[in-house]
Amino acid sequence: MLKLYTFPKTIGLACHIALAEAGAAYELVKVDFMTNAQRAPDYLAINPKSRVPALETPQGILTEAPAIMTYIAQTHPAAKLVPDEPFAFAEMLAFNIYLCGTVHPAAAHRHRGYRWADAPEAIEDMRRKAPLNVAECFDLIEAHMFKGPWVMGQDYSLADPYLYVLTSWLARDGVDSAPYPKVMEHFARMGERPAVRKVLAEVEALSAA
Amino acid sequence: MLKLYTFPKTIGLACHIALAEAGAAYELVKVDFMTNAQRAPDYLAINPKSRVPALETPQGILTEAPAIMTYIAQTHPAAKLVPDEPFAFAEMLAFNIYLCGTVHPAAAHRHRGYRWADAPEAIEDMRRKAPLNVAECFDLIEAHMFKGPWVMGQDYSLADPYLYVLTSWLARDGVDSAPYPKVMEHFARMGERPAVRKVLAEVEALSAA
Ligand SMILES: N[C@@H](CCC(=O)N[C@@H](CS)C(=O)NCC(=O)O)C(=O)O
Ligand SMILES: N[C@@H](CCC(=O)N[C@@H](CS)C(=O)NCC(=O)O)C(=O)O
Repeated sequence: MLKLYTFPKTIGLACHIALAEAGAAYELVKVDFMTNAQRAPDYLAINPKSRVPALETPQGILTEAPAIMTYIAQTHPAAKLVPDEPFAFAEMLAFNIYLCGTVHPAAAHRHRGYRWADAPEAIEDMRRKAPLNVAECFDLIEAHMFKGPWVMGQDYSLADPYLYVLTSWLARDGVDSAPYPKVMEHFARMGERPAVRKVLAEVEALSAA
Repeated sequence: MLKLYTFPKTIGLACHIALAEAGAAYELVKVDFMTNAQRAPDYLAINPKSRVPALETPQGILTEAPAIMTYIAQTHPAAKLVPDEPFAFAEMLAFNIYLCGTVHPAAAHRHRGYRWADAPEAIEDMRRKAPLNVAECFDLIEAHMFKGPWVMGQDYSLADPYLYVLTSWLARDGVDSAPYPKVMEHFARMGERPAVRKVLAEVEALSAA
């Protein structure tokens, strides 16, 4: 049984979708941001980085969404969530790593600027600029990276739930989605997948819990 | 023949070391930051993200250092630069993704704060705080992630050149390395590897070119 430590609306959702698409047996553990549970000693013992997601596996704990998702895919090969061929695999990985290492931090400057500066004016300036940076990233995704109908082309892969979650943040982060018709159509198409519907219902139950 | 677009002292160096360790046939292309070549139209046609590294392969261009390195390792399996077993592979990938997505951006706030804010005071505040954030990341690496003698334990892997490059930035970034004896011993051990010596000589030639 895999145990996913997560919180609604975080990048943990991409891992949750990967678990459902893989047909994995899993359990969710809510790390309650409302009580700062991600900074409590019992959670730090699981993930000293003080972030979600973390995945408890029979072999130990994994962190970092793109790595967690790769593990889920590779241990559930029948679901074919990652390409086998090295170039196609690396291209998919590069997409997820771009979301993880560039787009996600660009968005985080809106709500968590205190990570990188202390002065209130500095935090406010980052907050103002963040949507412009996220928009620039989505310009690149729409024009250069997204192949269609799925992110990597004909085959659904781990790049799809990852993009889905970052797309879901656009409105909250003050980014106008009108310039991204391909991305927004993808978002709608994702919402129709049975695994995604099941996951969204589970997230609702988790929020209420 | 693989073609690596890089510039000295960037994270391209980790890919360069991976190529040498893999015994790959490769060629280096200098993207000259001194002339802002990373923003020139001919380079944007290769990598619209305007960053190095990029790797030209027979199947197309790859970006994002952890993905490029994984591709090099998987297409040169004899060099055994990545574990085959899914958990060990994901753990290694998570380490590199942490360096790529958290530690590298933490360091970038020192020299490239203009990416995330415009006000000179904001950029100065980020510049001041960056070494503290990088130090916090290295605290975690030293205490929780580094296994020894190599990052992932007994076996050398792609995590080693990645950590090596980020360690090489500490002094420039104003971070005292005294609290990281394991990391610094690893840095010295890396410097003795024949592949690393060969790469450093090639970087020197590239700098002069
Ligand atoms: N690089 C990590 C980032 C994880 C991350 O930043 N998670 C956020 C939620 S999306 C978090 O846990 N924030 C809690 C906090 O900042 O206190 C990954 O991709 O898994
Ligand atoms: N996430 C990318 C980051 C690449 C990156 O930021 N490269 C820096 C050099 S270390 C760069 O090209 N900077 C040029 C610039 O900012 O103009 C990766 O890991 O490959």
